[in-house]
Amino acid sequence: MGSIYDQGLNKNQANYVPLSPLSFLGRSAAVYPKRLSVIQGARHYTWSETYDRVKRMASALAKLGVVKNDTVACMLPNIAAMYEAHFAVPMVGAVLNTLNTRLDSEAIAFQLQHGEAKVLITDPEFASVVKGALELLPGKKPLVIDVMDPEFESQERVGTLDFDQLLASGDPNYALSLPGDEWDPIALNYTSGTTGNPKGVVYHHRGAYLNAVSNVVSWGMPPHAVYLWTLPMFHCNGWCFPWTMAVNAGVSVCLRKVDPAKIFELIKVHNITHMCGAPIIYGMLINAPEECRSGLNHRVNGLIAGAAPPAAIIEGCDKIGFNITHVYGLTETYGPASVCAKQPEWDSLSLEFRAARNGRQGVNYHLQEAVTVLDPETMLPVPWDGETVGEIMFRGNVVMKGYLKNPDATNEAFAGGWFHTGDLAVVHSDGYVKIKDRSKDVIISGGENISSLEVEEVLFRHPAVNIAAVVAKPDDKWGEVPCAYIELRPGAQATEVEIMEFCREHLARFKVPKKVVFIEIPKTSTGKVQKFRLREFAKSASAIE
Amino acid sequence: MGSIYDQGLNKNQANYVPLSPLSFLGRSAAVYPKRLSVIQGARHYTWSETYDRVKRMASALAKLGVVKNDTVACMLPNIAAMYEAHFAVPMVGAVLNTLNTRLDSEAIAFQLQHGEAKVLITDPEFASVVKGALELLPGKKPLVIDVMDPEFESQERVGTLDFDQLLASGDPNYALSLPGDEWDPIALNYTSGTTGNPKGVVYHHRGAYLNAVSNVVSWGMPPHAVYLWTLPMFHCNGWCFPWTMAVNAGVSVCLRKVDPAKIFELIKVHNITHMCGAPIIYGMLINAPEECRSGLNHRVNGLIAGAAPPAAIIEGCDKIGFNITHVYGLTETYGPASVCAKQPEWDSLSLEFRAARNGRQGVNYHLQEAVTVLDPETMLPVPWDGETVGEIMFRGNVVMKGYLKNPDATNEAFAGGWFHTGDLAVVHSDGYVKIKDRSKDVIISGGENISSLEVEEVLFRHPAVNIAAVVAKPDDKWGEVPCAYIELRPGAQATEVEIMEFCREHLARFKVPKKVVFIEIPKTSTGKVQKFRLREFAKSASAIE
Ligand SMILES: Nc1ncnc2c1ncn2[C@@H]1O[C@H](COP(=O)(O)OP(=O)(O)OP(=O)(O)O)[C@@H](O)[C@H]1O
Ligand SMILES: Nc1ncnc2c1ncn2[C@@H]1O[C@H](COP(=O)(O)OP(=O)(O)OP(=O)(O)O)[C@@H](O)[C@H]1O
Ligand SMILES: [Mg+2]
Ligand SMILES: [Mg+2]
Repeated sequence: MGSIYDQGLNKNQANYVPLSPLSFLGRSAAVYPKRLSVIQGARHYTWSETYDRVKRMASALAKLGVVKNDTVACMLPNIAAMYEAHFAVPMVGAVLNTLNTRLDSEAIAFQLQHGEAKVLITDPEFASVVKGALELLPGKKPLVIDVMDPEFESQERVGTLDFDQLLASGDPNYALSLPGDEWDPIALNYTSGTTGNPKGVVYHHRGAYLNAVSNVVSWGMPPHAVYLWTLPMFHCNGWCFPWTMAVNAGVSVCLRKVDPAKIFELIKVHNITHMCGAPIIYGMLINAPEECRSGLNHRVNGLIAGAAPPAAIIEGCDKIGFNITHVYGLTETYGPASVCAKQPEWDSLSLEFRAARNGRQGVNYHLQEAVTVLDPETMLPVPWDGETVGEIMFRGNVVMKGYLKNPDATNEAFAGGWFHTGDLAVVHSDGYVKIKDRSKDVIISGGENISSLEVEEVLFRHPAVNIAAVVAKPDDKWGEVPCAYIELRPGAQATEVEIMEFCREHLARFKVPKKVVFIEIPKTSTGKVQKFRLREFAKSASAIE
Repeated sequence: MGSIYDQGLNKNQANYVPLSPLSFLGRSAAVYPKRLSVIQGARHYTWSETYDRVKRMASALAKLGVVKNDTVACMLPNIAAMYEAHFAVPMVGAVLNTLNTRLDSEAIAFQLQHGEAKVLITDPEFASVVKGALELLPGKKPLVIDVMDPEFESQERVGTLDFDQLLASGDPNYALSLPGDEWDPIALNYTSGTTGNPKGVVYHHRGAYLNAVSNVVSWGMPPHAVYLWTLPMFHCNGWCFPWTMAVNAGVSVCLRKVDPAKIFELIKVHNITHMCGAPIIYGMLINAPEECRSGLNHRVNGLIAGAAPPAAIIEGCDKIGFNITHVYGLTETYGPASVCAKQPEWDSLSLEFRAARNGRQGVNYHLQEAVTVLDPETMLPVPWDGETVGEIMFRGNVVMKGYLKNPDATNEAFAGGWFHTGDLAVVHSDGYVKIKDRSKDVIISGGENISSLEVEEVLFRHPAVNIAAVVAKPDDKWGEVPCAYIELRPGAQATEVEIMEFCREHLARFKVPKKVVFIEIPKTSTGKVQKFRLREFAKSASAIE
């Protein structure tokens, strides 16, 4: 009782609606029915068509018996069907589980089983992996739907249902119903498994809504942006960009396969204004033959994240005409949840210094409450001295519900009221976070911590180096010593001694790799270096020595 | 039991934070401490200074005994203290009641009493009105704090406390604490009382947060916009723009008094990019002497709302270099909650046709769920024929909690799960809402409805007319007939017969005013025509005849 504000001012249908990204689709279809929504090769869809297809898909899924809290898995490239699934699956109250298309049958089988997928929507490109996965699956198999793409070479089917027929059987008047509660699950995303077994991260409608909007605000994205899908939609739901593009009624230009020539072609043909990707993608664009880029007359806005971008990449992007904004996040934070917000005074810095500023992981996203670096023992903030290392922690509405069927990992991740990222960082005097390493990647040599990232930064500056990764090698005297694995640029050459000499010029002696190995670097399916595999190499190498 | 998604995926401190615009201030102060936040005459504040002042103010209010759900009233012009109150008052859990500074003592006394203000913060400009109001107040008076402005002519005090001393006594380390619940009240705003007694509209933190963001998205507002405070902050909390400017870390340029010469000067000096106002404000700018505008070399983005903008005003704005976006809303919807979203094909229309398109009230704001036109009897949508009139209704998170101490009005406003605006409109074939009239302003002549707005549109096109208002005059034969009240442009002349002749050229005969009166039009304190007063004039005139 008591306050005048406690009387008769309750929630009702008129003043309270669950936050859900589904609302954005309804709005864009109503306000911009004839504007382009999705371009897939020769096919151009408008917002009214996309909405129509989504409603058909949702109603067809409902007819197939998909209900609230069922998991619907997708093994799809960046095509219209994948975009549509981001709306149709939640529209029936189900949970979208986008599978990483670069995984093998075993990993796919694991996720299908763990997520208890009831339906699997797949593409001929992955037919053999999916077949293998289904065979591995014990017990009841999901219902499989094939999305046939006339513009793709293979027409191999795995399932019993055809996506186009499914749409044709659907009801375009199916009602868009919002979730009963904005805390209801909308998606299930498995982590990359860089540090161990992938975990099933569950998103809610509220977070998807807020991060979709935050992408617009934090990137200063104008209405009707033209977005190229260089980032896989399977990865953290494409950092929430399928929903973001519905907020700003922009165009999604699909891309089945990352290929620099194709990317530059699409940028020119469609006047792409925005794209996202891991550093490795931008590296490919920078290294693409000159003729790919010729004729590109406008600057493209690029979001970069997924791994620490070497300064050399940020600088290279600038030179080839990209305005790069660096963001940072994890599967657990719906993709990007911090941004290296640019400061006006950086404009007058040299490219090198500007790239260093922009290479930091930055500050919280507008609609994420906070990012900070804490000592995980005391949960106290580290001083802003650019030196004291702590763990990056997030708090806010753009943090997962938790890990599916994994209460222990969930509790551990949320200990002390913050989400623990497992990434180690310092805070600079301006409050910007700078990653030093993943906690599992730090090298401890003679009691001193060496950031593998710092050594890699130097290696990336060597003209012959394409990709570099530094891991700990067991050492009798020092405990661990840094060992560098290097993938050379096509045609380039370098020797171990040269590389070590180069490092010595730029690094304290104890940080210089004690061994340099030239190989093709193993990567996760999201393009991240698999350091745990390199560590195994390093360990067995030192066992042999 | 039940779904795998129902187990161990609950809200906790790491993944759920109440939505509150206070978060935006904390972020801008942390990320852009040295960027400008507020400019008031010679005083320039940075985000770190504004945050410091807000925390001091909040802690001082707390020391004065202000607690959760107390009302803190402000009788302030658009000055820094008013901006700061938008954060400091909610920071102690109290409710900000911004008083309309154009009201008289009686109206202010009514609001202070009805809202049960515990503290009143006021400015010398309104000293006599406030003194009068305090005398009228029965029972316990609020504690009064004076904000002294050295740049303002009067230094007359009303209260016992000085704002600057209060800040000096405050604690800059006071902790920003978010509300316990995002549904907690943040502001109390009285409606303009155009149609009767003002009602006390209560806002919650969630709605203020969402509409602050929606202003950015729906207007396509870039980061660090420079915003001129032509719109009173007391009006629907300045349409949520104090909070919006904290989202995008922009600059608020204060303006004590609307004066065209001053406005153009500030636009030029500070490179204003954005401003808001009622049509009457833009009318003043259009009619300002040529020399005011000379030297203005950039286009200004203007949001227009508060009353239906005559096409002549939209056209005039275009000509003097303003990019006008038309929005619509009410006190009950946190200010603007629909926008006349521009379509690309309008660009190729003639100015006249484009202005007509832009003159519509449009579609829902991005973060408002829906706006629609329903038959209030059946609650069914009207056909999109541009002809069938219904009542505009809103639904979504940007709708008030309800009317303070007025459950009957609240229930009536929310009947059927929609917020009833009392505005009558049609829907065009593209789904855009177009206001025809307020339900109380329609003129029923010989059984035919006449939209007063439609007749006014024509009158506004007459070169001698500055402001026009049309109301019903009782008539023995027709029941009601339209009667036009006209305020002429300075120096212009026109006769009743001329005006009627002009109307006959553009309107059906039954819509032509049967009487034309030249007077100074009475306006509400928010600049709206007081039609109820004109109706009284018209009634007494016809009684005399
Ligand atoms: N901008 C960035 N700079 C540095 N590292 C980044 C950046 N963005 C992402 N990362 C790295 O990626 C991680 C998040 O990746 P993701 O969620 O895809 O799976 P993963 O953490 O690699 O896998 P797993 O959690 O299964 O080991 C972060 O914790 C961080 O280490
Ligand atoms: N863009 C617009 N076009 C037409 N009318 C508008 C527009 N924006 C606002 N209005 C009018 O203003 C009204 C909202 O004004 P406000 O909430 O300030 O108080 P009021 O409705 O005038 O007063 P009261 O509710 O006390 O009678 C709307 O209901 C509408 O009639
Ligand atoms: Mg991880
Ligand atoms: Mg009203």
